[in-house]
Amino acid sequence: MEYPPRFRMAHLPTPVQKLNKNHEYKGYRIWVKRDDLTGLELTGNKARKLDFLIRDAVLSGAGRVITCGGLQSNHCRATAFYAAKTGLKCTLLLRGENPPALEGNFFLYRLLGTEIIFITPEQYKNNLELMEEQAAKSAEQTYVIPEGGSNEIGCWGYISAFDEILSQQTDLGLEFGAVVTATGSGGTHAGLLLGRNIHRAPTEIWSVNVADTAPEFVRRIHGICQSFSQRYHYQLNINENDIHIQDGFIGPGYAEIGPAEIEIIRRMAREEGLILDPAYTSKAFLGLLHLLDRQVLPKGPVLFIHTGGSFGLFPAWHQFAD
Amino acid sequence: MEYPPRFRMAHLPTPVQKLNKNHEYKGYRIWVKRDDLTGLELTGNKARKLDFLIRDAVLSGAGRVITCGGLQSNHCRATAFYAAKTGLKCTLLLRGENPPALEGNFFLYRLLGTEIIFITPEQYKNNLELMEEQAAKSAEQTYVIPEGGSNEIGCWGYISAFDEILSQQTDLGLEFGAVVTATGSGGTHAGLLLGRNIHRAPTEIWSVNVADTAPEFVRRIHGICQSFSQRYHYQLNINENDIHIQDGFIGPGYAEIGPAEIEIIRRMAREEGLILDPAYTSKAFLGLLHLLDRQVLPKGPVLFIHTGGSFGLFPAWHQFAD
Repeated sequence: MEYPPRFRMAHLPTPVQKLNKNHEYKGYRIWVKRDDLTGLELTGNKARKLDFLIRDAVLSGAGRVITCGGLQSNHCRATAFYAAKTGLKCTLLLRGENPPALEGNFFLYRLLGTEIIFITPEQYKNNLELMEEQAAKSAEQTYVIPEGGSNEIGCWGYISAFDEILSQQTDLGLEFGAVVTATGSGGTHAGLLLGRNIHRAPTEIWSVNVADTAPEFVRRIHGICQSFSQRYHYQLNINENDIHIQDGFIGPGYAEIGPAEIEIIRRMAREEGLILDPAYTSKAFLGLLHLLDRQVLPKGPVLFIHTGGSFGLFPAWHQFAD
Repeated sequence: MEYPPRFRMAHLPTPVQKLNKNHEYKGYRIWVKRDDLTGLELTGNKARKLDFLIRDAVLSGAGRVITCGGLQSNHCRATAFYAAKTGLKCTLLLRGENPPALEGNFFLYRLLGTEIIFITPEQYKNNLELMEEQAAKSAEQTYVIPEGGSNEIGCWGYISAFDEILSQQTDLGLEFGAVVTATGSGGTHAGLLLGRNIHRAPTEIWSVNVADTAPEFVRRIHGICQSFSQRYHYQLNINENDIHIQDGFIGPGYAEIGPAEIEIIRRMAREEGLILDPAYTSKAFLGLLHLLDRQVLPKGPVLFIHTGGSFGLFPAWHQFAD
């Protein structure tokens, strides 16, 4: 399939690295795709999606983008920086109240002078409608980017990442039995699954949900694949049974951490020199270990996608004080 | 010249990007080499130096490394992560007292479980001797890395970066009249200068000192070049007059910021989507603009090295609250 137009601000390809002390685990060999290295201000999986979404925004003639997320949203931070780089204005709908301290990603939105509108968790349930209303009121033509950049355009970022993975596994002389990622809005999983489908690759795609429930994400991911199919006239060959999600690793709640997340974040820093984040990768890595314990994935090398989010760790410092 | 053995954990090559709104300035064209993208946990110029220094430590049989810096030292953070990745233990001598909050780089040392010894500014003046004493007392064979990784081994990181710059300017079809960087311990400047000398390139190498005085850095940088010459039997063709330093941009003090630094950090975020840091790049960028105002550098394209340090911005949030 032909790619739609894109910017190339994500720093690609990202390296695939084997773990150091935890590489061999119960008959598996764990590798990490460093999508936290897509940039610094752009760090994480969102940079890949925004390469396509922001290009689409500019092509549509927009002067402003609007998106939404939590107070420490990596997607909002990456969108705000991408907008600054391309001369677009940016509005963020944030779930929560104005915090007293400027920490992590929230500090960075403020540094950028991004327009911020705080909304309640109740209002957030209708975030797409609220963004559309806000866009209609705006002085500039405004392009709406859904939560997490997870739609049929954003998912091209991970179709492209799947291409990268195929080429890297060839270079490394191995074949990943499965690719495992966090899922928080479905776009990364959907893109990888579409990539697998386009290439008719045997690689299994799994994700660990960090909010809501597995059935809810199956529905969302299938929905993104269907929208993709319609927009790009792609004969879809994916049904809901092909969407593999490991539930049970939300921990204390979305973006909240308890002893298990604290322990894995510490351990991965000390044993691997990697920074996992509180909202996504700490939980997804726990889910990965559980999948390996259960012996569910094909034996051999398995690829964990580090989807970024490291700035979100700074506001959690109180939980790491000894 | 033949390179000494190295690890390859810095994510290279780093991109060279032109500025967006500030590209054309007083007859110059400003480009940025994104050495903040050498990694995430390793972000910044130190990753390049550590590729050589940590390899040397491992080859020497060390089980531990020791280095020193301020409470928010990027060099200490990069060294601690590099040590974790290679299975070395790490000790840091930090100038200051145990801070109440875990912020920025200091949080990351703690996350890694790094051994930390706090010393006074007075003691810090003899940091090399203190590190050698500490190393002699250690249970493991301990390798001493000087402040900033700035010695004749670490500077290979920027000899290698200069190679990268030559190749990138060819790819881009341009020739940088000057390369401008921050200098805080001299190793980056010394490496670039040695690279220029080895290649007999016309590119001028300039730095902006962020501590002490220009004459002090001329002495230090010349000292690193001399040590390099001795260790690698390289016929040195550099005298102190070849070392160009722009003084006057320390601002309120080392790693402290005032209105000028706050303004440039905000402006570069908003207009360029770049995160400058309080200790190095904000001051060096102000120094670069001054050099361009003075028309001192050869006309045409000029390359600013973004030496990283972005995590150091988080603890300064109070100064950015509106």
